[in-house]
Amino acid sequence: MGHRLVDASAPARLAAPDEGIGRDELALATRNHGLPLEALRYDVTPPGLHYVLTHYDIPYVAEDQPWHLIVGGRVRRPLELDLAALRAFPEVTTRVTLECAGNGRALLTPRPVSQPWLVEAVGTAEWTGVPLRLLLAEAGVEPDAVDVVFTGADHGVERGVEQDYQRSLPVDVATGTEPEVLVAYAMNGGPLPPQHGHPLRLIVPGWYGMAHVKWLREVAVTDVPFTGFQQTVAYRLRQDAGDEGEPVTRIDPRALLVPPGFPDFMSRARVVRPGQVPLEGRAWSGRAPVTGVEVSTDAGHTWRRAELEPADGRRWAWRRWHLTWDASPGEHVLSARATDSEGHTQPLDQPWNRGGFAVNLVQRVPVLCLEGDGTDPAGQPAYASRQ
Amino acid sequence: MGHRLVDASAPARLAAPDEGIGRDELALATRNHGLPLEALRYDVTPPGLHYVLTHYDIPYVAEDQPWHLIVGGRVRRPLELDLAALRAFPEVTTRVTLECAGNGRALLTPRPVSQPWLVEAVGTAEWTGVPLRLLLAEAGVEPDAVDVVFTGADHGVERGVEQDYQRSLPVDVATGTEPEVLVAYAMNGGPLPPQHGHPLRLIVPGWYGMAHVKWLREVAVTDVPFTGFQQTVAYRLRQDAGDEGEPVTRIDPRALLVPPGFPDFMSRARVVRPGQVPLEGRAWSGRAPVTGVEVSTDAGHTWRRAELEPADGRRWAWRRWHLTWDASPGEHVLSARATDSEGHTQPLDQPWNRGGFAVNLVQRVPVLCLEGDGTDPAGQPAYASRQ
Repeated sequence: MGHRLVDASAPARLAAPDEGIGRDELALATRNHGLPLEALRYDVTPPGLHYVLTHYDIPYVAEDQPWHLIVGGRVRRPLELDLAALRAFPEVTTRVTLECAGNGRALLTPRPVSQPWLVEAVGTAEWTGVPLRLLLAEAGVEPDAVDVVFTGADHGVERGVEQDYQRSLPVDVATGTEPEVLVAYAMNGGPLPPQHGHPLRLIVPGWYGMAHVKWLREVAVTDVPFTGFQQTVAYRLRQDAGDEGEPVTRIDPRALLVPPGFPDFMSRARVVRPGQVPLEGRAWSGRAPVTGVEVSTDAGHTWRRAELEPADGRRWAWRRWHLTWDASPGEHVLSARATDSEGHTQPLDQPWNRGGFAVNLVQRVPVLCLEGDGTDPAGQPAYASRQ
Repeated sequence: MGHRLVDASAPARLAAPDEGIGRDELALATRNHGLPLEALRYDVTPPGLHYVLTHYDIPYVAEDQPWHLIVGGRVRRPLELDLAALRAFPEVTTRVTLECAGNGRALLTPRPVSQPWLVEAVGTAEWTGVPLRLLLAEAGVEPDAVDVVFTGADHGVERGVEQDYQRSLPVDVATGTEPEVLVAYAMNGGPLPPQHGHPLRLIVPGWYGMAHVKWLREVAVTDVPFTGFQQTVAYRLRQDAGDEGEPVTRIDPRALLVPPGFPDFMSRARVVRPGQVPLEGRAWSGRAPVTGVEVSTDAGHTWRRAELEPADGRRWAWRRWHLTWDASPGEHVLSARATDSEGHTQPLDQPWNRGGFAVNLVQRVPVLCLEGDGTDPAGQPAYASRQ
């Protein structure tokens, strides 16, 4: 028997009932990371706190290494552009909330075995680059164009298939303005960090992260629908493994709250004192503008409308919301739920699918409100805070 | 029954046999993150790839928020220094490899339930700040001084104890020069990111991460040994819960290799083609300078000496090493093992302790070397790479 790729690459599977997170899922969780939820306080996520999901390895690209973007396929004038040539095009900066399509996966029962996100795979950045439509106009898209295929420099094997990471967009999305797709070379005013696609990545505002191809090296216009692994095998909403499934595209609405008070190290449960507790968070939807956020402090039995900060014209970025909670002693579960102008909202029961994609189940934050005025014998450290 | 902190804060425990990673461990793993191992290629870890471990929440400190560092306790002239006053002291920049004391914990059997690191909780940065010994000299340490206690702005509950994060150093370490402890205000030439202690943190070169107190707001000299939670309850090497234990201090030697070839998405197993495969990695020890790295390509049965790059005078930073491996088809396990000038090295069997600290068990990297010249029917994508 020879040694073949499938020996290193198992098929997709669901976890057994009560099966804990395995070593393989943990290896993904220790490399990739979410947004620590207290960082929802920032309008723009500071470097290193934005979520990261890398399928294979982060390619090593030396600072002075030349990089060329190929624009080819069904175009009249194929282009090969270095970074200086890209910077000669008009520059656009867009604030975008990016969320992993697998966010929420680890909350599902049964759990699809993959990157085990809870709710934290999100972040907001200012992306600067060239509108893709300008590059495609320069190249001249042929009238028979169907899809635009994006290839990254990241290479690996997945479910037995060796591949460069590739995703496509329909040509009308790639050349559209709502959203305006960017070939980005800067994040928050600086060069892209390695893990965010240095030196070039795609930004598709409003779409889940799988569309934002990192380490972008080729844009190819095709006259047939793209059938690559990440388009037709992965990132589909399926109930059964044999289903063709629906493609994962735009980000479903979600609200997250900054967990109030302070945490227990291990359980991450929150502790507050009785009284007025300010609650705040962010809400977003890639489908339509967010129009409302409701908050529950009783595990979803009743809901109150939060105050949503005014829209500031940044359609593709999250919006801040806030509310005050009068906390009384006891155990509470806090939740927030976003609704957008097309009526999309978040489910209270899990929207199960086999890949664990687009799981926008409402967040649940357990909070313990202590008795009395906050002095708590069990909470006193066994040492003085200052000698 | 009232609601008390212990309701949110369970005692330390060991996982049951075959117990997978639980929801609580996962919540830590998705917030905190390790160094993706391919980033061992960089001399200095790019922002966002350096490991992060935060006990409680990352404190929110606005850009223009004033910050004062108190230096007090058993000193003749207590100080209260703002950032400008700190910058008026002589400035030192040191390249330091920082590793979490819990690195390797999730490899243990039985597994201590806490942040579940495999091997990746490490990073190297250039830290700039004021030598602590200069601040203490300015304040005038009293002759009866024993410990120096550092208090961060991060607040939480841990094993039932509400606390600000606090750690101490013996006064001779705090005022010493090997290592020279820094009060750092810059990382890699820029302000500290929030998750690395903005605006001030301690840097104790050669010591595990728990000593490098982040969001530093107070330095207090004491005339009695400090007995705080993080000093006498957590971060001790114990076999049984009742042991007093030994304190966790300096970093034990470790070598890590950049996993060669390309990965499988899910298993993270590596795939290479037959032939000469360059291997490289980093090695460090906080105890003494690294003097050798050995590499095994047969699961630890035989070892070959790697070429260690010359020491460049940066005592507290990792050193690069490399070696060429002649890979033949089949399944292999690669390992690397560092030794320092005091003879400390890495064990092949787990050095178990109840907290899972200082676990410098050698890394094991499973690699599949494919048959033949690299063409592999199972590896061909079901689509053309370019239309």
